[in-house]
Amino acid sequence: MSRTVYVNGDFVPEAEAKVSVFDRGFLMADGVYEVTTVIGGKLVAFAGHMARLARSLAELAMAAPAGEAELLAIHRRLVEMNGLDEGLVYLQVTRGVADRDFAFPAAGTPPSLVLFTQKLAVLERETVRRGIRIALVPDLRWSRRDIKTVQLLYPSMAKMEARAKGCDDAWMVEDGLVTEGSSNNAYIVTHDGRIVTRHLGHAILHGITRKAVLGFAVEAGLVVEERAFSPDEAKAAKEAFITSASAFVTPVVEIDGVRIGEGIPGETVRRLRTIYIAESLATAI
Amino acid sequence: MSRTVYVNGDFVPEAEAKVSVFDRGFLMADGVYEVTTVIGGKLVAFAGHMARLARSLAELAMAAPAGEAELLAIHRRLVEMNGLDEGLVYLQVTRGVADRDFAFPAAGTPPSLVLFTQKLAVLERETVRRGIRIALVPDLRWSRRDIKTVQLLYPSMAKMEARAKGCDDAWMVEDGLVTEGSSNNAYIVTHDGRIVTRHLGHAILHGITRKAVLGFAVEAGLVVEERAFSPDEAKAAKEAFITSASAFVTPVVEIDGVRIGEGIPGETVRRLRTIYIAESLATAI
Repeated sequence: MSRTVYVNGDFVPEAEAKVSVFDRGFLMADGVYEVTTVIGGKLVAFAGHMARLARSLAELAMAAPAGEAELLAIHRRLVEMNGLDEGLVYLQVTRGVADRDFAFPAAGTPPSLVLFTQKLAVLERETVRRGIRIALVPDLRWSRRDIKTVQLLYPSMAKMEARAKGCDDAWMVEDGLVTEGSSNNAYIVTHDGRIVTRHLGHAILHGITRKAVLGFAVEAGLVVEERAFSPDEAKAAKEAFITSASAFVTPVVEIDGVRIGEGIPGETVRRLRTIYIAESLATAI
Repeated sequence: MSRTVYVNGDFVPEAEAKVSVFDRGFLMADGVYEVTTVIGGKLVAFAGHMARLARSLAELAMAAPAGEAELLAIHRRLVEMNGLDEGLVYLQVTRGVADRDFAFPAAGTPPSLVLFTQKLAVLERETVRRGIRIALVPDLRWSRRDIKTVQLLYPSMAKMEARAKGCDDAWMVEDGLVTEGSSNNAYIVTHDGRIVTRHLGHAILHGITRKAVLGFAVEAGLVVEERAFSPDEAKAAKEAFITSASAFVTPVVEIDGVRIGEGIPGETVRRLRTIYIAESLATAI
């Protein structure tokens, strides 16, 4: 318990990192977050995360707690104070502290801002070497998953349900089509080599890693189809994978007990992961 | 800012009532709550709230923070310390403090428990005298509204949308049928005097006040139909109303700009409110 955490202007020891019980993040899940990966002490895709944060805040009519330059300075100071070489910086903004009421607090109520680091191996992972097993679960989340809110109870439950089935993670299914993973976007590779992942909209998170990986795929001459796919199409695919800020590109080798392709990490996913890591290392700030 | 608040075993001044930023209630909306009304310093329907709390905890595999007798003692002590005559006691339980992870923390992690009071006029209200105006909004919440979680961002947004339309509150509509209000159950009274409110299930909160009011209605010889109704049926109804722990029975006089009945609080709702208050006063502990 030795981390230094940022809470509303102060850098404090983890044990003293507290917010009011009247914070709307605690009482009403009225908050949004971002998770930025750190490699070699540098931030990956920081601008993308800040752009999405700005979008989440705008969608919820929530005030920004600080400008991007100040947020960057806080991220860098936390990385330095915690000696973080590889891992994550978590950032959360809430609508602030006010007596409990469904109505938003008065304009001018300062938003809350909390950041902390987590050490985590992101470049070398056992899950990348062996590939992960996925369990399919119904998607019971609210309808605006494009807004990155802290309403993460169901994804958390889905993860536990997947583990109870001996799997690593869950893919969520709505109206017979896969939406996304519990905390990542979901992809398949068809037998003729096309990469298929659900189109953007309210049904899924607009992944920063998703956008980057699809761009790299197109640059590498791969065909990308942004459309929904069914569990059956996924089970019959050549390859499958997930992307997220911390998983980067991670292979999926089994879905609901059905082996995908050869049941080992595929060629396309390995290639995309290599490109993504090279670009991340080159562009981290 | 003079309230005394209960936080994990301590009674502290409001300004010192804090939880860790690593509390899963703050990071992942991994928490449930109850709100018990206080009249004349006594708790209304306390056993019902505790039974629902136990159900919410069980549905989420979350540990109980204390037994019912201890929770009652904390409620009573808070009411006394804050000199509360009329208002609410809010109680929240979360899955506790742990390093951020979608997976639940290790078994044995103590749940967090927070309680605070709010002064509020519940017996005499302007909204009861004039009746409230309702705006219809789509129901975008997660699918397990029968579990009373702190994922209240959308109900909060719905309330703001209703206010922006000059209304007092929102009723949510899913698949062409009304589910419930932003923080209350929704009812209509048909022209032949039947009380209609949505049946229990995952789509709505299992209101403690709902159960009591339906029971009193039957005892009073009224016919109750537990089934979903459409916005059009509601707009053509003789009367409409809501129930909740703090609204008790409150008349609805307008839905999406359409006057309900005479556009004034109706006879059935007045009668049910009177019975409910009398029973609450008689049975509060």
